[in-house]
Amino acid sequence: MESLSVALDSRSYPIHIGAGLLDRAELYAPHVRAAAAIISNKVVGPLYLSRVRKTLDKLGVRVVEVIVDDGEQAKDWATLDRVFDALLAARLGRDGVIVALGGGVVGDLAGFAAATYQRGLPFLQVPTTLLAQVDSSVGGKTAINHARGKNMIGAFHQPRAVIADLDTLDSLPDRELRAGIAEVIKHGAALDAAFLGWLEENMAKLVTRDRAALTYAIRRSCELKAAIVAEDERESGVRAVLNFGHTFGHAIETATGFGPWLHGEAVAAGMVMAAGLSARAGFLSSADAERIEALIKRAGLPTRAPKLAPERWRELMAVDKKAAGARVRFVLLHGLGRAKLEGAVDERLVSETIAAAAQ
Amino acid sequence: MESLSVALDSRSYPIHIGAGLLDRAELYAPHVRAAAAIISNKVVGPLYLSRVRKTLDKLGVRVVEVIVDDGEQAKDWATLDRVFDALLAARLGRDGVIVALGGGVVGDLAGFAAATYQRGLPFLQVPTTLLAQVDSSVGGKTAINHARGKNMIGAFHQPRAVIADLDTLDSLPDRELRAGIAEVIKHGAALDAAFLGWLEENMAKLVTRDRAALTYAIRRSCELKAAIVAEDERESGVRAVLNFGHTFGHAIETATGFGPWLHGEAVAAGMVMAAGLSARAGFLSSADAERIEALIKRAGLPTRAPKLAPERWRELMAVDKKAAGARVRFVLLHGLGRAKLEGAVDERLVSETIAAAAQ
Repeated sequence: MESLSVALDSRSYPIHIGAGLLDRAELYAPHVRAAAAIISNKVVGPLYLSRVRKTLDKLGVRVVEVIVDDGEQAKDWATLDRVFDALLAARLGRDGVIVALGGGVVGDLAGFAAATYQRGLPFLQVPTTLLAQVDSSVGGKTAINHARGKNMIGAFHQPRAVIADLDTLDSLPDRELRAGIAEVIKHGAALDAAFLGWLEENMAKLVTRDRAALTYAIRRSCELKAAIVAEDERESGVRAVLNFGHTFGHAIETATGFGPWLHGEAVAAGMVMAAGLSARAGFLSSADAERIEALIKRAGLPTRAPKLAPERWRELMAVDKKAAGARVRFVLLHGLGRAKLEGAVDERLVSETIAAAAQ
Repeated sequence: MESLSVALDSRSYPIHIGAGLLDRAELYAPHVRAAAAIISNKVVGPLYLSRVRKTLDKLGVRVVEVIVDDGEQAKDWATLDRVFDALLAARLGRDGVIVALGGGVVGDLAGFAAATYQRGLPFLQVPTTLLAQVDSSVGGKTAINHARGKNMIGAFHQPRAVIADLDTLDSLPDRELRAGIAEVIKHGAALDAAFLGWLEENMAKLVTRDRAALTYAIRRSCELKAAIVAEDERESGVRAVLNFGHTFGHAIETATGFGPWLHGEAVAAGMVMAAGLSARAGFLSSADAERIEALIKRAGLPTRAPKLAPERWRELMAVDKKAAGARVRFVLLHGLGRAKLEGAVDERLVSETIAAAAQ
């Protein structure tokens, strides 16, 4: 097991990465109290919930189980209301803790439930997808979607611990593995050119689930993200660079109704667009933009967005949370590993990028 | 104008109390940014929204108006979703601020919207009822109700300022004025015996809206509450004493479906029950319990709860947030002005209190 820490003073927490962690009671023990609600979904629940339950049983914790639907659609208002209803029906009190067992959707939904149920309970992230292990379980961003935009309703609510069991990746479909690799690529492209180089050398190992390669990719991603979160927890500044590829990516997800495109797939196509825009703006060489696109392609991820009218792109991006007033802001690369939030991007270059996106 | 402060380090904020404050641009100026969404209701909006709008217009702020229904029913899931929809339709971004213009319901709803819209925006409380001015606008508790219990979904989210304009009380119906007085009595009964004595002497002035008496009651209530909030922002300890009368009161509101009883009315009857329970437990003299009941009666507030089966009382109280596991905890008085959270109250005494409640 490897452990690292997200440094946030009194709210600092550990990230544990290793095999067999679902069963390690000592990782849960410091954080659980009288009762725990495990929130999972219809795919992950049958695979792993009984193991987590057994671990909590050993600690003498009363366990409540809440199972939601699989897929991005579950990050909605109606599902969240059903979660609250189940927690109240089970009389989970303020001495309870919430355990998010699943991928990014479960983590975001359960984390937001934890942020707001009875004005806030502590929670644990037990991510079971690569995307959740390398990205969404770390940093305390929780949210649900709104028909008008992704992650529009949410809270910053840090977990008490992240317990990433590598064994759970064995059951992950290839398509979801690749969607997780998209966020790994993001960390390299936005923050660490050397890590991007490592990914170019090791992509074949990652897509074939080489355990050592996966462990390194997860650890390095968590390190890079933890450093940014420690510096800017609530995204008032530098943390925005973690949204590289996400302004375009969120637009794709919203336009397609959350589901047909996995989040990581939309981010992949979004990163190709954002790298292209960076090159058009003169911040990134065309060769480096092509390296990013080639790497995304080798990961088996989409490099082209669905066809949308230019006005629809504008409309979808205007509601993105990074939009300040009327102006859409983009995270662009000033060289590999050097992402920056740009307030004033030439509209013509955005139009060219949109035009090129679906070709 | 009188001003005091809620001391919470970097999140400290002022409470301004006085006449004509809706129009004082300098009170809003430090807190507003590019855009502001004023959230109000169908009763308060027509009376005061245009004045606040005019003040914000002077500051060059883009104003969005969101009007919800009047009454406790508006503190629900469906209304909150409509608020989010309106904010998104108006493209309120992260550079926006939310202004809660109304009573406790608007403050709780708009405050929770501010806590969760795009993972949190700053907000201002502009309370227009006595209840909101003396209690709910101060301290950062925000929430909506759930069919299974009051304030079950919410967040601690402190406002940037509280702007309490005494003029707005002129339009307040008598019944709502009295409901606000219930929380003033609560502050005296729970925290300050001398203030309770002052209330006994000045109740006739308060119910007839003597401006000087109201100003003192609001100021002293805010002082008492601000000190408790500064000590225990997230209610992990002493802040629970502010819930004196609320365990029984919330049960009344939930049982009657949020509406027939105003919150302050339910708290009034709940305080009579809690004082009775305190006396039965031997913590409070019967004479002091009777003083509280007499004061509540002189304020024109209900001293008896609606008739509910004992099992229904138990069920409703078990879901209260102060319930730790299976045990319901009560805030009891150890003498006037000395409220304490009690973990172990004799079940027989609770039964006697419930039996006496509707007589």
